[in-house]
Amino acid sequence: MSSIPVQQDDRILIDFRTSDDAGVYKWAAGPALVQTVDFFTPIVDDPYVYGQIAAANALSDIYAMGGRPLTALAIAGFPQSDFDPAIIAAVFTGGFDTLREAGVALLGGHTVRDNEVKFGYAVTGEVDPARVLSNAGAQPGDALFLTKAIGTGIVGTAIKAGRAPDAVVRAAVRSMTQLNRGAAEALRALPAGHVHACTDISGFGLIGHASEVAAASGVTLHIDVRAVPLLTGVLDLATGNRPGGLGSNLEHFEAGVQAAAGIDEDLLWLMYDPQTSGGLLIAAAAEHAAAVERALARAGVAAVQVGTAGPRGPRLIELA
Amino acid sequence: MSSIPVQQDDRILIDFRTSDDAGVYKWAAGPALVQTVDFFTPIVDDPYVYGQIAAANALSDIYAMGGRPLTALAIAGFPQSDFDPAIIAAVFTGGFDTLREAGVALLGGHTVRDNEVKFGYAVTGEVDPARVLSNAGAQPGDALFLTKAIGTGIVGTAIKAGRAPDAVVRAAVRSMTQLNRGAAEALRALPAGHVHACTDISGFGLIGHASEVAAASGVTLHIDVRAVPLLTGVLDLATGNRPGGLGSNLEHFEAGVQAAAGIDEDLLWLMYDPQTSGGLLIAAAAEHAAAVERALARAGVAAVQVGTAGPRGPRLIELA
Repeated sequence: MSSIPVQQDDRILIDFRTSDDAGVYKWAAGPALVQTVDFFTPIVDDPYVYGQIAAANALSDIYAMGGRPLTALAIAGFPQSDFDPAIIAAVFTGGFDTLREAGVALLGGHTVRDNEVKFGYAVTGEVDPARVLSNAGAQPGDALFLTKAIGTGIVGTAIKAGRAPDAVVRAAVRSMTQLNRGAAEALRALPAGHVHACTDISGFGLIGHASEVAAASGVTLHIDVRAVPLLTGVLDLATGNRPGGLGSNLEHFEAGVQAAAGIDEDLLWLMYDPQTSGGLLIAAAAEHAAAVERALARAGVAAVQVGTAGPRGPRLIELA
Repeated sequence: MSSIPVQQDDRILIDFRTSDDAGVYKWAAGPALVQTVDFFTPIVDDPYVYGQIAAANALSDIYAMGGRPLTALAIAGFPQSDFDPAIIAAVFTGGFDTLREAGVALLGGHTVRDNEVKFGYAVTGEVDPARVLSNAGAQPGDALFLTKAIGTGIVGTAIKAGRAPDAVVRAAVRSMTQLNRGAAEALRALPAGHVHACTDISGFGLIGHASEVAAASGVTLHIDVRAVPLLTGVLDLATGNRPGGLGSNLEHFEAGVQAAAGIDEDLLWLMYDPQTSGGLLIAAAAEHAAAVERALARAGVAAVQVGTAGPRGPRLIELA
């Protein structure tokens, strides 16, 4: 969309030109709108769970901006013939149940005939314009917290190949169906200035999204690879189950990464694994890091410190 | 989506359960949100024009509800390989230019790899909750106005088969790229009560959307088939260029229609022709019909009276 000219509209607070998770637009009165759209092909076999994940994933961009999601429009593609209507109903019901859990109203949607199944949502939330959590804002000294384990891309590939043990699938599904709402509400309840930046980990993987935060904030992020939480059993699946998107992420972001010698190769690859409905990556002010961690823990969010921000060095990301 | 339970949320003013053009949701302050999503496969050969039509079509649902569109999220599918990036850029640019003409900000979007090209938008607008123009509200005696000629489905089918004369294509493109903004703004500027109901004519065709208005309003709509404006040259194309959606519309809506004897068969079929970016169908209070017509004319909208509403008879639609 680089050919699109710049929009002159002072109601646009954030649009597609930055690498943020969602756009932000001033409403006539009250909080601002925060808006995003995401949909994808099935990543699990169970249609109800697929719908749940699609909803949790779409809502996540709103939470990552510090917003509260309010409405959703469904976006769906299903094959025309020989396709069981009960499957379609299960996908919609799974999505609806997750929207309802989040307090989000389904206002409408559009379904097309499509050889490949697709499902997702356009979501609108409200956000205090003074408290938008963008990718920009991380400062040297900030503590980096991650709220979910990574590895859903590799597990999804293993599921498609029939190579994923049940326990691994269950752990991945539990993670992907979990809303980032608890984390977002905990951050919103903190005083302004405790959190400097936030994003959610999705298609670009931990390194890709961390690179965007580093670039937008003018810092280098130092990530302790061994501290990054991994989905149960995913390390054993890493070889031989790399999704296509992992290679694209490596190609796109590797030049900005300095990795210390001796990091296990499978572990390194996992840092590039594309996530579906991943956790939040939070840059917390150094002096408030403990308070942020406590607030997340009180909200039942298993946030793990995975690194710190430092002054901009030669690379966006340094892995140790 | 009939399996989805009713949502308990007093901020939902209109959701997907009615057959309205868009959902409506109360914001914390100021006007309500009005939201819709639509996307489709190419219907013309020129990618820039395809983008323009996709935007005008998606915005139309907002205008049909009495709203003013403000933001859009792009929804796109393009093949992975051997697909010219210049074509993708042209589609996005055509869409963006039409959004800009409408004063709508593009906040973001999501593009997937798709064997079949798809493009459209999720659109959010603002609407005065007291002035929402829904399908319900038409009253016996109302005058029915239509603001665009019909026939885009048949022309689109003829384009795909290489059977559409240039002049016919030009007329259809001119109609489909035209925003319903002028008509919507003219209606909004009228005192409350002048317009009882409004919808836009899209996939269900004139009869399908008129049937939804009749059902929601508890009236029968009497349509004078010979008064319905037709795209230049479309009657000559009607035989042999019927789109698949026309047959579905006939199957779905025919039982609610009483057609007088002697109506030309091609003309009758056109009443079921699925439209892309069609006009508004407006039910105007009898005593204000002349004022509504004048307001539309002053706005440069070629509105034609195509019928009247009467008390609910045995059928939803009577064609004469």
